[in-house]
Amino acid sequence: MAILVVGSVAFDSIETPHGKRAKILGGAATHFSLAASYFTDVRVIAVVGEDFLPEHEAVFTKRGIDTQGIEHASGLSFHWTGAYAGTLAEAQTLGTDLNVFERFEPKIPDTYKDSEYLFLANIDPVLQARVRSEMSRVRMVCGDTMNYWIKDHAANLAKVLRELDVLLINDGEARMLSGETNPVRAAEKVLALGPKSLVVKHGEYGATAFYGERSFAGVKGTRPFRAPALPLAEVIDPTGAGDSFAGGFYGYLASQPELTPAVFRRAMFYGGVMGSFAVERFGTERLQGVTREEIEERFNLFREISHLDHTA
Amino acid sequence: MAILVVGSVAFDSIETPHGKRAKILGGAATHFSLAASYFTDVRVIAVVGEDFLPEHEAVFTKRGIDTQGIEHASGLSFHWTGAYAGTLAEAQTLGTDLNVFERFEPKIPDTYKDSEYLFLANIDPVLQARVRSEMSRVRMVCGDTMNYWIKDHAANLAKVLRELDVLLINDGEARMLSGETNPVRAAEKVLALGPKSLVVKHGEYGATAFYGERSFAGVKGTRPFRAPALPLAEVIDPTGAGDSFAGGFYGYLASQPELTPAVFRRAMFYGGVMGSFAVERFGTERLQGVTREEIEERFNLFREISHLDHTA
Repeated sequence: MAILVVGSVAFDSIETPHGKRAKILGGAATHFSLAASYFTDVRVIAVVGEDFLPEHEAVFTKRGIDTQGIEHASGLSFHWTGAYAGTLAEAQTLGTDLNVFERFEPKIPDTYKDSEYLFLANIDPVLQARVRSEMSRVRMVCGDTMNYWIKDHAANLAKVLRELDVLLINDGEARMLSGETNPVRAAEKVLALGPKSLVVKHGEYGATAFYGERSFAGVKGTRPFRAPALPLAEVIDPTGAGDSFAGGFYGYLASQPELTPAVFRRAMFYGGVMGSFAVERFGTERLQGVTREEIEERFNLFREISHLDHTA
Repeated sequence: MAILVVGSVAFDSIETPHGKRAKILGGAATHFSLAASYFTDVRVIAVVGEDFLPEHEAVFTKRGIDTQGIEHASGLSFHWTGAYAGTLAEAQTLGTDLNVFERFEPKIPDTYKDSEYLFLANIDPVLQARVRSEMSRVRMVCGDTMNYWIKDHAANLAKVLRELDVLLINDGEARMLSGETNPVRAAEKVLALGPKSLVVKHGEYGATAFYGERSFAGVKGTRPFRAPALPLAEVIDPTGAGDSFAGGFYGYLASQPELTPAVFRRAMFYGGVMGSFAVERFGTERLQGVTREEIEERFNLFREISHLDHTA
């Protein structure tokens, strides 16, 4: 079933120990859409500037992604400049030019209104809440956020958190949102803020799902589930790994007829799989060209490296 | 089959956000022995001072650990003082009083000579090599080391590495030993130094096993294997978690009639299990009193939180 994603479609200028790229296609909604497109139909709501050319739009449409909701405004697209060093664990932001994104007012095309899965990528929680309220027919809402909104827009974010079936954040964001350093206590506090479940991404160490006391995916307040990440010999560019995880995770969930604990677990693995592809090339390059066979192969690899009963 | 372990038996003065303890029983060989004692016979070689009382020795003997090789010297035992803050990921060493440990000359009792499994805990690689050379009948050698030996005793350490079936270190040590920040490249470089396999511990994120090109445990140069750690709501004291991991890992290996890939994988899980118990109380408290049933229960929990086919 179709996923509607609202978030940034942007250009990134990136430097990693493996090279440099200027103004390549990026943005949370872009990475998410491409990753999810291997599993289900995806519809994007975003705003871009005059530097967003047909060749950029083709990256979406070639993957069958609906770009009707990408608004073209006058001016330049959101442009992020960042660099990675050392273990590549964290980006150093060198520049954030919001440009047309500064006045982003998400408009939902009528043809998107029947989307049953909503993904609120990392944008102003006021906009997240507005899109959520306009999508009356969704059966699942998954969202992301970041330190900036947690720190300075707590009240607005609180409203969004109560609407979420799944909150997808990283370790640092979970600590900041909860004020707790212990990951289990942090998860408990975050779940108390409203999301039915929480997926915490650990970068190269995988991700952990926690479930709240409100039943979801057939489980509540139960054991966490920990999905591995694939140890990779070459991480070319970590940009968008988290959004690609989200796309694989949510894309798989949306593709399944029923949400069960087993489906949720497999979704965690598909998230890791898509994240692992994303970092193999700069920007969206790898996720433009992966095949469904490669995805299944890597899924099996994730299973092989983490399961006791696998005979390697 | 019996494991011979050589390493430190010491006292630790520890401060964590959960409290403070002065001069409690610790040391790598202590944590290792207790964890391994739930799986197989353990024999210890260490040196202690006059402050090591019968009540401390009883901690070993109550678990059936052979203490014949613990030499009693005049003076005080090795005493480490450290503190943990924040995420408890790293200890801040406040004091290292080597005391009798400074002139440690491992002496191997004759009754230890038939030990088939050798564990070289984190001590001077010159002593590790000497013990190794005196144990002609061992069928497996597993070892640990730390930044100090990697940095300033590289040539001596190199000799030990060539003798190891398994090297057990943490992420930071793997980076330092290899000069590589990427974990897979780091593992490849470390394996090129000699160990047949490498287990890298990731603290709260579990551990990864890598295999070299020399066949070991029925595998060589193959996929890594990643074992999870248990997300714990309360980490009281992380001291000894890595040594307890080593004890569970190696104790299980030594208890099995044959070394197979499946046995190696289960050993990684038992390592995580014993590490997860260790941190639940200060010092050795938890590992003194765990039961075999609790160990099996937690092993199943590790499986439950990491396997796709588990119906939670």
